[in-house]
Amino acid sequence: MSKPYKGFEPKWYRGEVPANSYRSIFKWGKPDFIKVPKETLYNMMKGIFNVTDDDFKSYNENLGLDEVKFDVAKKACKDEDIKFFKSVCGDDNVKDDDYSRLSVAYGKTMYDLLRLRNKIVENIPDVVVYPSDKKEIEKIVQYCVERRIPVYVYGGGSSVTRGVECMKGEVSFDMRKNYNKVISFNEIDQTITVQTGMSGPQLESHLNNAIAEFKAKRAYTCGHFPQSFEYSSVGGWVVTRGAGQNSTYYGKIEDIVLSQEYVTPVGKIVTSHAPAEATGPSINQIMMGSEGAFGILTEVTLKVFRYMPENRKRYSFMFKDWETAQAAAREMMQCEGGTSSVFRLSDPEETSIMMKLYGVEDSPLAKLFKLRGFKDNEKCLFLGFSDGEKGFSKNVSRCIKRIARHFGGMNLTGYVTKSWEKGRFNDPYLRDSMQDFGIMTDTLECSVNWSNMAQVHRDVRAFCKSRPNTICMTHMSHAYPQGANLYFIFIAKMSDLKEYKAYQDGILDAIQKAGASMSHHHGIGKSFAPWLEGSLGKNEYEIFKVLKNHFDPEFLMNPGGTLGLDLKPEEKISKSDKIDFTKR
Amino acid sequence: MSKPYKGFEPKWYRGEVPANSYRSIFKWGKPDFIKVPKETLYNMMKGIFNVTDDDFKSYNENLGLDEVKFDVAKKACKDEDIKFFKSVCGDDNVKDDDYSRLSVAYGKTMYDLLRLRNKIVENIPDVVVYPSDKKEIEKIVQYCVERRIPVYVYGGGSSVTRGVECMKGEVSFDMRKNYNKVISFNEIDQTITVQTGMSGPQLESHLNNAIAEFKAKRAYTCGHFPQSFEYSSVGGWVVTRGAGQNSTYYGKIEDIVLSQEYVTPVGKIVTSHAPAEATGPSINQIMMGSEGAFGILTEVTLKVFRYMPENRKRYSFMFKDWETAQAAAREMMQCEGGTSSVFRLSDPEETSIMMKLYGVEDSPLAKLFKLRGFKDNEKCLFLGFSDGEKGFSKNVSRCIKRIARHFGGMNLTGYVTKSWEKGRFNDPYLRDSMQDFGIMTDTLECSVNWSNMAQVHRDVRAFCKSRPNTICMTHMSHAYPQGANLYFIFIAKMSDLKEYKAYQDGILDAIQKAGASMSHHHGIGKSFAPWLEGSLGKNEYEIFKVLKNHFDPEFLMNPGGTLGLDLKPEEKISKSDKIDFTKR
Repeated sequence: MSKPYKGFEPKWYRGEVPANSYRSIFKWGKPDFIKVPKETLYNMMKGIFNVTDDDFKSYNENLGLDEVKFDVAKKACKDEDIKFFKSVCGDDNVKDDDYSRLSVAYGKTMYDLLRLRNKIVENIPDVVVYPSDKKEIEKIVQYCVERRIPVYVYGGGSSVTRGVECMKGEVSFDMRKNYNKVISFNEIDQTITVQTGMSGPQLESHLNNAIAEFKAKRAYTCGHFPQSFEYSSVGGWVVTRGAGQNSTYYGKIEDIVLSQEYVTPVGKIVTSHAPAEATGPSINQIMMGSEGAFGILTEVTLKVFRYMPENRKRYSFMFKDWETAQAAAREMMQCEGGTSSVFRLSDPEETSIMMKLYGVEDSPLAKLFKLRGFKDNEKCLFLGFSDGEKGFSKNVSRCIKRIARHFGGMNLTGYVTKSWEKGRFNDPYLRDSMQDFGIMTDTLECSVNWSNMAQVHRDVRAFCKSRPNTICMTHMSHAYPQGANLYFIFIAKMSDLKEYKAYQDGILDAIQKAGASMSHHHGIGKSFAPWLEGSLGKNEYEIFKVLKNHFDPEFLMNPGGTLGLDLKPEEKISKSDKIDFTKR
Repeated sequence: MSKPYKGFEPKWYRGEVPANSYRSIFKWGKPDFIKVPKETLYNMMKGIFNVTDDDFKSYNENLGLDEVKFDVAKKACKDEDIKFFKSVCGDDNVKDDDYSRLSVAYGKTMYDLLRLRNKIVENIPDVVVYPSDKKEIEKIVQYCVERRIPVYVYGGGSSVTRGVECMKGEVSFDMRKNYNKVISFNEIDQTITVQTGMSGPQLESHLNNAIAEFKAKRAYTCGHFPQSFEYSSVGGWVVTRGAGQNSTYYGKIEDIVLSQEYVTPVGKIVTSHAPAEATGPSINQIMMGSEGAFGILTEVTLKVFRYMPENRKRYSFMFKDWETAQAAAREMMQCEGGTSSVFRLSDPEETSIMMKLYGVEDSPLAKLFKLRGFKDNEKCLFLGFSDGEKGFSKNVSRCIKRIARHFGGMNLTGYVTKSWEKGRFNDPYLRDSMQDFGIMTDTLECSVNWSNMAQVHRDVRAFCKSRPNTICMTHMSHAYPQGANLYFIFIAKMSDLKEYKAYQDGILDAIQKAGASMSHHHGIGKSFAPWLEGSLGKNEYEIFKVLKNHFDPEFLMNPGGTLGLDLKPEEKISKSDKIDFTKR
């Protein structure tokens, strides 16, 4: 746990999270685990948000401890439908109580959290079904298609794009409970086939224990570790085209997927398991990214990798400024010395916050920075580690160190990387603690080429910072020889849904205008859909519509705006009215 | 040049190739270059084909030296169409003479060569257009779509799938002459954008000379070297999903492409240049592999790589048998020590031929094999080299050597690899020399998983060898952690078109039945199209039809069987009547 505060400490909510409460739905992760900002970070935030300790003496936001209870009528689901679902999945695996319905309606974007804290119950399913095998899913989808009943899927629930939201109500499959089994493991081909409700830790545990579990010769890893790892599902990774923090080495999920099986209104789609092909357009790549709009992903075969944590080499460097750091990162990605596994470069604002978050500011290092002429609000932190075979990992580390030195980077050893690793999956817990006091944290990300990176960073930041008293941390991660992901984290005192939506829209506008691709790994969902056609182009977007019309002409698969495919202009989740944030 | 024969040497045709002859169309490569088998290989073939020197005293096949001349009426092209094409591209860039028409009609499969040798002129365009820029292509495509005129494209002409064949006649764009310029070079992103008629050597030359030509900081390479390198085009690589011999390191062309621009009947398609995305299905991956059936690929942006030949490490090993060699190759691909650039494993039959081809049989090594217990018709040759940064390349070589030793491989040093490199682009010349005496050489390839490789190899070979007096060499190349490409080369005394077609069909049947994917990098074209739906599945294949119907509902883009998309069952290039090859 974190160190006790020396000065005033906000009354971070450390109480119970009642089992059937709103909080139990929106709270990140384990009910009994919380994480709070370090004192240095808290003090810094006060300065930035222009608030005092007094603002942290009582909660500014609903804690959401009440039991979930509402009076929202079912949209169309009939008793006979529920009876049918029960006949397929068993009585215990079909639920229509308030809690079950609401718990699969929202994801984890700030828009979701704010609605849950404020008991805004909208767009929920009539009934939740917990399938156990794909035959059940097939039967229910067929039944629903025949009766034009909309179908939704809830995987891990960590969507930040309103991807799981049941805009048209009716049925949602909650895959977490029963649909998480290993179908087969193939050590010769190094693949595993799983049901799509399997969570990250479940998958990784099977693979790490392959020797005992599958009588394998060695242990394996999935290589896919998004920040949401513990509460995201394999199916969610695939349909959104997610990326793990180690993707620079292991690849994005679309590189890790070997084959997929879907149930769609026009029948099953089973993609090829060949390692590569020249047999027309890639059906694997047509289905990935379909976000439930073409059908339900029932099985995935993933490539697996050897589990060799003993070969990991950690490194971190401080660079003089963003421009130099970017040039170094680009050289690291283009030198062909092998790719780093985690590869992460923070801009000056994120760097100064990370220095506080990881306690570097209190260490002797801080003095060294000054001595060496590294300035606050200019210096940039790079960290990462390599994976793979021992010699490979070593060579990656060797190249990175050589290049960092060449660009004047100051070697911070593996210390900072280790600090980052400690928080890599539990930083999202910070969000709930801070939001209790009205401080919202959210993220948006995009994909850029190296030649466009400076402009995208500058333009998006310019919009973010046009709102006074707002933190905007940016890092570059998931890198490639041709570019990288730019990831923006914004933190502000903000509790108003409308303001939040307008702010998010403004950032999306800035991303699009600067010429970046709208998402590198979060997906599009329903939130970002209004930007999709503008980003891809009219003729290009038309291809998605053609595919949607083929698979789901009645708009029954994740309908209500997914990828923007099925709505009339006036129905779309529209861009908000502009708010002039400079005037706040 | 090759060593003179000690004994009888066939009268290999070394004469002129008249400029407007059939031979000038079907002959591989440079008009004045020929290559003939080494004496050891010639003697071996005589034994296998059960023929004598007498059979090589006169040519058994037409040499095709006559001037191209035929009387095939135009299908539908009117004078006004030609006038329009000339107004767009200039008088010199529109041709309708016999030679120009025939020279873009066929590719390089044995089926094409046999037709050309026998003056079988069918499926030729009415007129050939040589565009210079994409505006010209756009104008002509628009004109043709309005008038329902079928449009074909001829890139490098090395198709082995009847990909370029003008089944419905009318217009073919020959991209070789004028459509081969660099559009832009971006050293920051390490990309080059080119017109799609650019040949492999043209592209590689621009990149190798980047310092002088683009004022770049360093030299680059395209990383894509198919055996057809010298006579294939960038556009052809992309639309067929080709692979170079170095693809194990550099990737298949679909990994190397960053973005593409197409002219289609429904307008332009320009794909995203972001390095990776989560913005729905991949449009890049929908267009790649469309083989001209959706529209014409006008521009491609390729990733480029650093040109560092000084870091290359060569290796070759002999393994005891196919099973051991496969196991070693799999370990090399799964060990995560970095991937070899060229990575090639020959089965016993190919190994014994390569030993002859590369003169190893005459060397002291041959004796060592016997001493060490490596048996003919059992031992397997592995060869390859690594590329990339110096330490990376070294580590790949180190891992390969360690693994080869572990599996009992005998180190043959880089000698054999160098021999292979010498022939890597000019082995196709052998084919014409041998065919003059009625010996045909052709290839088929497929994609397999490791767990299926032994079966596919066994079953396909069983069919190939069911025909007596037939060579069937197989190698595994283009490898992945999950499997590899299996490449079959068959050589036989065979001159009959029907027999050839039936034999090819039998192999394709065997590939499909054994569960391999129908192509790893040759594409599908018109020849393999009848197998495509069976290989992909009905629902999966339907997706291609939906896309075709969107882009080209009137069947004007490369029509007549490409990917099997536009023909009624009775029009299809059908599978042949079965021939019992064991009875020949």
